[in-house]
Amino acid sequence: MGNQDQQSKIKQLKNGHVSMPNGFYAEGIAAGIKSNKQKDLAVLYADQPCNFVALYTQNQLKGESLKWTIDLLNDNKPFRGLLVNSGNANTAVGATGYNHAKELAFLLADKIQADPEEIYIASTGIIGIELPMDLMRTGIEALNLNQSKGDDFAQAILTTDTQSKEVALEIEYKDKKYMIAGCAKGAGMIHPNLATMLAFVTTDVPIDPKWAHQILTESVNLSFNMIDVDMDTSPCDMVALISKQGSKNEIVDQTHPLSALFKEALQKVCIHLAKGIASDGEGATCLIEARINQASSDLIAKNAARSIISSLLIKTMVKGKDPNWGRIITALGNAIPAMNENKISIHIGEIKVYENGKPLFKNAEKAVDEMYGSTVLITIDLNDGNANAVAWGCDLTQEYVKINSEYTT
Amino acid sequence: MGNQDQQSKIKQLKNGHVSMPNGFYAEGIAAGIKSNKQKDLAVLYADQPCNFVALYTQNQLKGESLKWTIDLLNDNKPFRGLLVNSGNANTAVGATGYNHAKELAFLLADKIQADPEEIYIASTGIIGIELPMDLMRTGIEALNLNQSKGDDFAQAILTTDTQSKEVALEIEYKDKKYMIAGCAKGAGMIHPNLATMLAFVTTDVPIDPKWAHQILTESVNLSFNMIDVDMDTSPCDMVALISKQGSKNEIVDQTHPLSALFKEALQKVCIHLAKGIASDGEGATCLIEARINQASSDLIAKNAARSIISSLLIKTMVKGKDPNWGRIITALGNAIPAMNENKISIHIGEIKVYENGKPLFKNAEKAVDEMYGSTVLITIDLNDGNANAVAWGCDLTQEYVKINSEYTT
Repeated sequence: MGNQDQQSKIKQLKNGHVSMPNGFYAEGIAAGIKSNKQKDLAVLYADQPCNFVALYTQNQLKGESLKWTIDLLNDNKPFRGLLVNSGNANTAVGATGYNHAKELAFLLADKIQADPEEIYIASTGIIGIELPMDLMRTGIEALNLNQSKGDDFAQAILTTDTQSKEVALEIEYKDKKYMIAGCAKGAGMIHPNLATMLAFVTTDVPIDPKWAHQILTESVNLSFNMIDVDMDTSPCDMVALISKQGSKNEIVDQTHPLSALFKEALQKVCIHLAKGIASDGEGATCLIEARINQASSDLIAKNAARSIISSLLIKTMVKGKDPNWGRIITALGNAIPAMNENKISIHIGEIKVYENGKPLFKNAEKAVDEMYGSTVLITIDLNDGNANAVAWGCDLTQEYVKINSEYTT
Repeated sequence: MGNQDQQSKIKQLKNGHVSMPNGFYAEGIAAGIKSNKQKDLAVLYADQPCNFVALYTQNQLKGESLKWTIDLLNDNKPFRGLLVNSGNANTAVGATGYNHAKELAFLLADKIQADPEEIYIASTGIIGIELPMDLMRTGIEALNLNQSKGDDFAQAILTTDTQSKEVALEIEYKDKKYMIAGCAKGAGMIHPNLATMLAFVTTDVPIDPKWAHQILTESVNLSFNMIDVDMDTSPCDMVALISKQGSKNEIVDQTHPLSALFKEALQKVCIHLAKGIASDGEGATCLIEARINQASSDLIAKNAARSIISSLLIKTMVKGKDPNWGRIITALGNAIPAMNENKISIHIGEIKVYENGKPLFKNAEKAVDEMYGSTVLITIDLNDGNANAVAWGCDLTQEYVKINSEYTT
């Protein structure tokens, strides 16, 4: 993402964090839920009611905190506050877990003088163990609010991540400046037991809730759904967009002149955070970006891009710095109906390794050099239409296996 | 598989191999296609025309040798001989590859005095490089036929496999003895570049070709399609059933009294070979068997069983000897629509680790002990119907990543 996009008037801010937009406050502390003394209790709230729209996991197993949040979503409850804990997913613990989530909402509501049904809850961490409510009550009691500590919030929602993922963009429109910001957690590959991909986006642009849901869905389809963390896999996955409620003539929907710019900014935020999750995959050493060009349909382009970044053999070949076009063409052959390999070209970085159905062996050595950066780019031209797609993943290393085979319940 | 099944009169023979059924001959030699001097050229033939039915890859990229074989299949050509080479997949080399396959058929036809269009061809190994035809011509010339060297055949079709997979069963029916035998190759996980799962089954029972195709499909759906080698992934995958052509009143179809017994034997052969492939997965240390009981439909049972054996997190937890019910229930949540976790029980080996929606923490240590055998059994009771399914996979180890990241084109 460029630092300044003249045409679109969208500017990325330095050290962006989720409580930067006007009227949002955040805090993150160590409440003792995690055994390693790291931050694990995070609060985000707004000084006025906001709209909260979200997409969440399709897994049939759902966390109890997420169930509380889904109930509020179904009732179109406004947002005043969000409490997130890491270290414990509040999942597979029976009905007690739902009552715990409810109690957390009441505690935070009391603290910020809101209605408990305006308090959203998210939990991430190990499953099958009840929340340590004593620690959490003490933690909420100890929270120092009215802070703009988005960085601490972003730290406190992490589990196995090696770093926080944050971004903030300024949108300039008719001499006014707006802001959209976000943060996310998730360590690349699915984590049923350490659970969950979470992303929270805040903005001071008053967005029409129906339109917000529509553009969030579109943005998620281009970002979090195009990385090797399947939205469908973990019991607590959620992506939320929290926006100010404005007066009637302020509200931005698809008919508003700001709509195109805001939608673009939202996509940039989601893609930034999604790439952050993909490149922080457990044990990963680099990001893989798969670009499909000239596909006959959007669906084929997406499926092809996803088949590249989810193939174990491509993930290991990137680890091994092996420009193995054979693994790429074979992954494509599984994703593309009636594929004609004789029309396909493949680049690794800037180097063409396969053209019109035949490998270019003489380029293999140069292609190896393209695989040593922090991002390995694989570009496939299908020469079959006008649809494009991009997906992101990471390499698969022995460290990944070590992490996941040595982790014990 | 038991050594003797009284009820079904099916007996597994010691040191079974593919040329055991009456009238079949096999040979396998080192022709120099592989650089490591191991066997790489295999021939199977029959002393009379046979029926050849096969299922093959759905991948849009198809090997040139497979294309020759598909042409014969489409024309219902009888089988006299089969030539298989390992070390080179004859794939992604353009039209030359098809002409090479055709020439191989002519050479073997000449040698066994058959029609070239009765000679089936299969190739497996690296892709993108033309077959070394000089070596193959010399190899075919040097073949010593009229041999019953099924073991050498089974060796010569291997690529990264650590051992050959062979089995032979005797079927007793009305004081007559028949035989069905098979061998397979494939090293557990998908191998686009080392390519291919192959399995060949021979029998001296004269099977009606239409019925043969039907029961082969059924058997493959219970065996090769239930292991973590996806039939759809590699350009040369094939499973074939080769059976004698009998006189009209000998032919066995679904109305014949032998049909149930033969179908059972075919399933046993396929399951035996499929388990052999799964447990020989690259870097694997054990077989994982996932049993789904009491599902509401066959499809749900199958999808659930496959979701267990294909989950990276379950494969690594088995490696780590961690009875992690959380990873299991989460994998199920992705596979089962409207799953109700409160009805589900999970066993690891003989030990129950999860019951009616709650973990049984006190059993965890005993469950660890169940994870040290050559097979780790995961049994899931859904309490939701009468459908069952079984699937097989293997653990994921650091050795797998090492093999696949250090392999170079």
